[in-house]
Amino acid sequence: MKDRRTIRKYSDKNISEELLNELLLTACRASNTGNMQTYSIVITRDEENKKKLAPAHFNQPMVVGAPVVLTFCADYNRFSKWCKLRGAEPGYDNFQSFVAAFVDTVAVAQAFCDAAESHGLGICYLGTTTYNADKITDALNLPELVVPVTTITVGYSQEIPAQVERLPLEAIIHNEVYCDYSSDMINELYEEKESLEANKSYVEENNKPSLAHVFTDIRYTKANSEYFSKVFLDLIKRQKFLD
Amino acid sequence: MKDRRTIRKYSDKNISEELLNELLLTACRASNTGNMQTYSIVITRDEENKKKLAPAHFNQPMVVGAPVVLTFCADYNRFSKWCKLRGAEPGYDNFQSFVAAFVDTVAVAQAFCDAAESHGLGICYLGTTTYNADKITDALNLPELVVPVTTITVGYSQEIPAQVERLPLEAIIHNEVYCDYSSDMINELYEEKESLEANKSYVEENNKPSLAHVFTDIRYTKANSEYFSKVFLDLIKRQKFLD
Repeated sequence: MKDRRTIRKYSDKNISEELLNELLLTACRASNTGNMQTYSIVITRDEENKKKLAPAHFNQPMVVGAPVVLTFCADYNRFSKWCKLRGAEPGYDNFQSFVAAFVDTVAVAQAFCDAAESHGLGICYLGTTTYNADKITDALNLPELVVPVTTITVGYSQEIPAQVERLPLEAIIHNEVYCDYSSDMINELYEEKESLEANKSYVEENNKPSLAHVFTDIRYTKANSEYFSKVFLDLIKRQKFLD
Repeated sequence: MKDRRTIRKYSDKNISEELLNELLLTACRASNTGNMQTYSIVITRDEENKKKLAPAHFNQPMVVGAPVVLTFCADYNRFSKWCKLRGAEPGYDNFQSFVAAFVDTVAVAQAFCDAAESHGLGICYLGTTTYNADKITDALNLPELVVPVTTITVGYSQEIPAQVERLPLEAIIHNEVYCDYSSDMINELYEEKESLEANKSYVEENNKPSLAHVFTDIRYTKANSEYFSKVFLDLIKRQKFLD
């Protein structure tokens, strides 16, 4: 796990149904709220269906390039249907239920990644899932009380890319209470990241004054974040998790 | 991973700082959005601080019983501070940023669990985190743009509990598009779960007509879900992720 890296280019080798099912079964052993298992996983293997999903992921090449695309969805539809069928009254059309299902869905997704990587497969998360969740909902025919929260492409690696950096652990952990960051601390914690040749070139290529500007001005802009906030809020309303 | 079970009772054996840091470092290798690492992990080892957190987790005994309690928080505070310090304008005070950070935070939490369990430790997720996120925010001094999303208690197991059931994989996966559940399918998929002796006794003890009623009437009621929806929405507004 410590040596892992995200894999974006996959070989032609397919993943057998047997292996995929074994990994999915393993992933479903992850903890979940009240053992309600409020998630569903849509498996896309068909070329045409991958092409239908691709625009929602801004045509990132992993979608059509991977043998398997997995869309992990928070799902209170199945559980609510079961409750109703037994004459019980489900009350899960609300934000708290969405949030609980969200946690459980991502936990299963990450457990899948850990299991897949331990079997020699490579994975890539597609953060675009919550950008265009409305389009994915349409493409996958998701009913009310089902919302896509993350997507993973998986396959055998075609190449072993360099491992990217992480902030030092001191940047992430807080002992007992949150210790807010002074300017000196920020400078110290980001020093290594900013001094890496790869990041320096990246700033230069983008013609920006700092690495931070590449994020704020190009990769994760305020305008985009605000636009996709509305899209996602509208979707969770449409799917009945929010009034 | 396939043989795992949640551990709620821990032995007196402590977790060394060295092992904990190694596991946290490993967890931070999980994929994350744009390598922004928009999460923080608050480590609680101190008895008094565990007692302060316990009521927010409805005094579940794992909180004071575990040697280590980890609160995983979505965190755009550190990243935004870095941007500002470099003269860039962060635009992450919105719902989409919260959602992206939420995914990354849970992924790190689950990667931590998988790493910890592979080292012989036992873990338990506390779903109460999103119920009383406001109280946890206060107890841990979380600033704006930081929201707790899940908590994990971790330690060496005092006992090996029975493994609980899971729905069959066919209940969880959908090929190519979501296949909505007919009543017959629900009956079939829940048959094994409902026929387990442990679940039958559970229904009887609670004096309910079905297992579903135990969930809707006792464990996850509509009234509670609605109440805690409001608490959590208010908190993400207070922390500036929502207008």
